Amino acid sequence: MSRHAELLKKIDDNSVIVGVIGLGYVGLPLAVAFAKKGIKVIGFEKSQKKIDLVNTGKNYIGDIVDEELARVVKDQYLSATSDVSSIRECDAVIICVPTPLDRFKKPDMSYIESACIDIGRNMKPGTFVSLESTTYPTTTEEFMKPILERESGLKEGEDFWLCFSPERVDPGNKDYKTENTPKIVGAFGEEAQEIAMALYGKAIQKLYPVSSPRAAEMVKILENTYRLVNISLINELALLAGKMQINIWEVIEAAKSKPYGFQAFYPGPGIGGHCIPLDPFYLEYIAKGFNFDLTMIDTAGRINTLMPHRMMNKIAYALNRHGKPMNGSTILFLGVAYKADIDDARESPALRVMEECERKRAKVLYHDPYIPEVIDDNGKKWVAVPLNDEIISHADCVVFTTAHSCFDIERIVKKAHLVVDMKNVVKHIHIENEKVFKL
Amino acid sequence: MSRHAELLKKIDDNSVIVGVIGLGYVGLPLAVAFAKKGIKVIGFEKSQKKIDLVNTGKNYIGDIVDEELARVVKDQYLSATSDVSSIRECDAVIICVPTPLDRFKKPDMSYIESACIDIGRNMKPGTFVSLESTTYPTTTEEFMKPILERESGLKEGEDFWLCFSPERVDPGNKDYKTENTPKIVGAFGEEAQEIAMALYGKAIQKLYPVSSPRAAEMVKILENTYRLVNISLINELALLAGKMQINIWEVIEAAKSKPYGFQAFYPGPGIGGHCIPLDPFYLEYIAKGFNFDLTMIDTAGRINTLMPHRMMNKIAYALNRHGKPMNGSTILFLGVAYKADIDDARESPALRVMEECERKRAKVLYHDPYIPEVIDDNGKKWVAVPLNDEIISHADCVVFTTAHSCFDIERIVKKAHLVVDMKNVVKHIHIENEKVFKL
Repeated sequence: MSRHAELLKKIDDNSVIVGVIGLGYVGLPLAVAFAKKGIKVIGFEKSQKKIDLVNTGKNYIGDIVDEELARVVKDQYLSATSDVSSIRECDAVIICVPTPLDRFKKPDMSYIESACIDIGRNMKPGTFVSLESTTYPTTTEEFMKPILERESGLKEGEDFWLCFSPERVDPGNKDYKTENTPKIVGAFGEEAQEIAMALYGKAIQKLYPVSSPRAAEMVKILENTYRLVNISLINELALLAGKMQINIWEVIEAAKSKPYGFQAFYPGPGIGGHCIPLDPFYLEYIAKGFNFDLTMIDTAGRINTLMPHRMMNKIAYALNRHGKPMNGSTILFLGVAYKADIDDARESPALRVMEECERKRAKVLYHDPYIPEVIDDNGKKWVAVPLNDEIISHADCVVFTTAHSCFDIERIVKKAHLVVDMKNVVKHIHIENEKVFKL
Repeated sequence: MSRHAELLKKIDDNSVIVGVIGLGYVGLPLAVAFAKKGIKVIGFEKSQKKIDLVNTGKNYIGDIVDEELARVVKDQYLSATSDVSSIRECDAVIICVPTPLDRFKKPDMSYIESACIDIGRNMKPGTFVSLESTTYPTTTEEFMKPILERESGLKEGEDFWLCFSPERVDPGNKDYKTENTPKIVGAFGEEAQEIAMALYGKAIQKLYPVSSPRAAEMVKILENTYRLVNISLINELALLAGKMQINIWEVIEAAKSKPYGFQAFYPGPGIGGHCIPLDPFYLEYIAKGFNFDLTMIDTAGRINTLMPHRMMNKIAYALNRHGKPMNGSTILFLGVAYKADIDDARESPALRVMEECERKRAKVLYHDPYIPEVIDDNGKKWVAVPLNDEIISHADCVVFTTAHSCFDIERIVKKAHLVVDMKNVVKHIHIENEKVFKL
């Protein structure tokens, strides 16, 4: 039996062993999705804390059902380790590591590189390797493949198979989780694609095959570039609308009445999370290698870079109407999570507005029920204050930066002296009155 | 009975007389929609040819059912005239004139101005006036209102009512026509809004009221700015994808499998029609008055300005692969309409590519079953050639610029020496082969 047929058989009878590298927002839900279907999964993770949590059945990712994780660990379908030599037990290895940008917006490929070295040094012939981390088109072919071949001495397409299948995790999305979000699959060659479809088909309800890894890489970038550009556009229009005394939120709701050709995006203090602020810049990076300037992404990037500064100005404008300078005023920010009802402050736009205000000598406080403390880009640790009437009425300005549904808006607005509403949570105000100012 | 109650009563019992100024793509379908409901409509039009056509029941707009027009004219619910003194017979006047940009992308308000002068000089007290033409926010309030008041000696809100209600006509859309596309309505004050809702409610199935004319003006601009920005984005990404040997059409289809947060736009030789290439620049114009730069619209504009040049380069690239220069080659363009299956070449991107190629000394021909002749920006008249095997095989290059569904793609590709496909009509080709090159 050929290696290819052998692996397909193992997938078919659930005897395949899947390795998942990186047990974060992407890797752990995927590991649980496979384990739930009775497939043995070994999770590889650097953080001993996460390993201990997983191995004792304790969940640390919002989108996972606690009991499901506990059950698959108890039933020994899922275990976690930092020992990469266990990669040789795996028939398939899926990489779910982060791909951050460095301070100069250049992709930091070190996590993928390190994962490829670990896999290359440990995998057995006949292994299927898939990358899920968002990255620039050509990564799988021109970055991963050479490392895997060099470290393993094996040949792609003969001794192992290679695939790119981008994660589409949307933290906090109530409708679409790992298992029911259609998944793009782009492997090299027919054999690899057949294995990829069979394997992912075990855990994911709907797969969408494309012709190559680079097409799959481009799909993910297109999705997030679309979001970046449209959020940037609406942020820019919101600033203009404010100047023109137009309520941009009303305008967006009205535009949504068009039954075709429009999708609503909403303004806010900036763009956060792991995907939208980063992914498009991978593409911009590789485009430069093709002597090509992506002017839309560049423009969107500029708008976002300026947003915290503009939001600080908005707060200063509101304070000024109350006859107060930024200097010495106490400003209470409500929400540092990058979107509502999640506990993730990565690339938090609120944090950047807070930094800007502090630089202008405001006394800055924050409250976020999901994030008791957070470290900003400069390494400074912020600790949340409790949200009580005394703190609200003590602040010169209260700023809504995240629309957490647990906030009691009416009470907060009642107790506050001044409110800047960047998320349209105060519905009864048109654009501004003496107390509430909208973005 | 107050004037306001009187007008509401006339609307209620269908004795209201509606004037529609401008019987083009927007005005004529609207006039027919009212007339169909048994309301008397007087159409005001400068072109004697259009007046004669309407008054003999002959249709010249694709989205209108011929028989419906013929019937309402025969039943004397609709007539057309150039005599603006008949405005005094009307209880409501709706302006549906064009708002083009001049050569320097400055809004040409002369049609609206002229309509307002005609209305102001002729309307009786108690008239309802509504503008449907897309324009920059503040137009109704700061441009129209002063002209109407000055010319009529009447006062807005007391002697007449004023409204902005943007047209959402999408030529060729099979599902959404004038009557079943939800309509934004933004009038000054409660009385005017009540009249506007009652009147439009006679002809349009679903209305969406907003708080002011300027909010309504912004809605239309947001919708079309969204489209401009996204088409520009996908055009730019398509050019990069081509360089990276990625089929952008495959990528878009795959991205569409994401069940939330994505809307597909498709690349092409540029942006045409009356709305998308123009509307966002109205906003850019007024933004400058607020000391505000709209960088996204500006960037989108740059991409589009460059598209014809880049498309000419694409043709040159394909010809070069066949060892031919642009100079002296015969290039046959298929489709000058700005979108499929319509007869409208306004702002035609194909025409601009044709001009660029002719400037590089190619022999340029075109065929479009819906547009037998067309005049370009330089005043040059182009006449369509017939589409037969001889002409196809005579051309050094055949270029698909509009995806008219009547084109027999297979036959054309078979007979052609070389094909440049800017609309993804040749489905069996991945990115390029020696005969077919995709955008």
